[in-house]
Amino acid sequence: MLKLYGFAVSNYYNMVKLALLEKGLPFEEVPFSGGQTPEALAISPRGKVPVLEVEHGYLNETSVILEYLEHTQPGRALLPSDPFQRAQVLALAREIELYIELPARACYPEAFFGMSVAPAIQEKSKAELLLGFASLARHGKFAPYVAGDSLSVADLYFLYSVTLARVVGHKLFGVDFLEGMPAAKALLERLEQLPNAQRVAADREAAMPQFLAMVAARK
Amino acid sequence: MLKLYGFAVSNYYNMVKLALLEKGLPFEEVPFSGGQTPEALAISPRGKVPVLEVEHGYLNETSVILEYLEHTQPGRALLPSDPFQRAQVLALAREIELYIELPARACYPEAFFGMSVAPAIQEKSKAELLLGFASLARHGKFAPYVAGDSLSVADLYFLYSVTLARVVGHKLFGVDFLEGMPAAKALLERLEQLPNAQRVAADREAAMPQFLAMVAARK
Repeated sequence: MLKLYGFAVSNYYNMVKLALLEKGLPFEEVPFSGGQTPEALAISPRGKVPVLEVEHGYLNETSVILEYLEHTQPGRALLPSDPFQRAQVLALAREIELYIELPARACYPEAFFGMSVAPAIQEKSKAELLLGFASLARHGKFAPYVAGDSLSVADLYFLYSVTLARVVGHKLFGVDFLEGMPAAKALLERLEQLPNAQRVAADREAAMPQFLAMVAARK
Repeated sequence: MLKLYGFAVSNYYNMVKLALLEKGLPFEEVPFSGGQTPEALAISPRGKVPVLEVEHGYLNETSVILEYLEHTQPGRALLPSDPFQRAQVLALAREIELYIELPARACYPEAFFGMSVAPAIQEKSKAELLLGFASLARHGKFAPYVAGDSLSVADLYFLYSVTLARVVGHKLFGVDFLEGMPAAKALLERLEQLPNAQRVAADREAAMPQFLAMVAARK
């Protein structure tokens, strides 16, 4: 059986978890917090979450895991079979990761964990996030899903990255990055209502107190 | 015919260009500098280089373009056909992009263009780069190629991202990020000797004076 290593507060973990649930694949969740210990690095070269264990070994990087699942597993398709359409969906997913998730992530310590982020880093993130959301508005279809008429891996990135980036926008910059994107807002609400997304959210809420205590202990 | 939009100084452009050359695919180079003009954004949602034009339209994001070429075009394979091995190669490529290229890129203005980068950003990049290279040392095979015994997309990232990240290391931090990785150094020299890589390098050198003049004019 597939084994998913990580923790329920990680948004990258939850992208893969929702993919597995939407595909109807059986999997086991294995608690793993990543980090730079020899044990963590033995299964994740950069100490990152999530890791997928398959019969041949460990796989890293959310984007790679999601494509591997499409390539090898049965169940609901989250990528089109046509190569050009498939590439468009993957480009949208990559654009959300590179231009929204990553600049927002640089601000997570201040937005979520009571730490401070240097003004120079905040300014860089804000400028990149504004361009990243403008790009999403330009390239996203929201008809009704990010890449068109069906749920895809781009929606996984959209749900779990854009939600956190909006919190960064509100808390640090007083900006709603989805202002002027009503179809995107409506999609976010629709995705949050998916039964499997509600299960992922419930698991996240249940794990949150322990996670915040761990973060506080490390400060 | 495939059309590759971009400019010869861009390392991402050169990854795709070398892939096309190694595959022996005919393609046309179209000068395109990206940016936030309406004309640029009409073909690249985030104004980034490179863009590949195929019969169905425009494709963005280097990682997506490289996989699309594997998926649809004849010529030398740069990814294994076995799904697990393929995922390992893609994970290595993604790790080089996320954990080496991107933190190094935040320092390019100071390393290459005579601008200054805030100390907080430099410190963040240095910490991430040290972890990124440690990850590459752990996951890379260098036997002799990054992912094993044949040239792959991971080598494209390795050649064009690690080279620039090393310059950042030397200039800003007085560090050789490949210190203690002799097989990686040897691979870099071997890749630079590839006839197609030499062609890419010659085109880059020819384009450099005009590019630097453009950067200087924007300052």
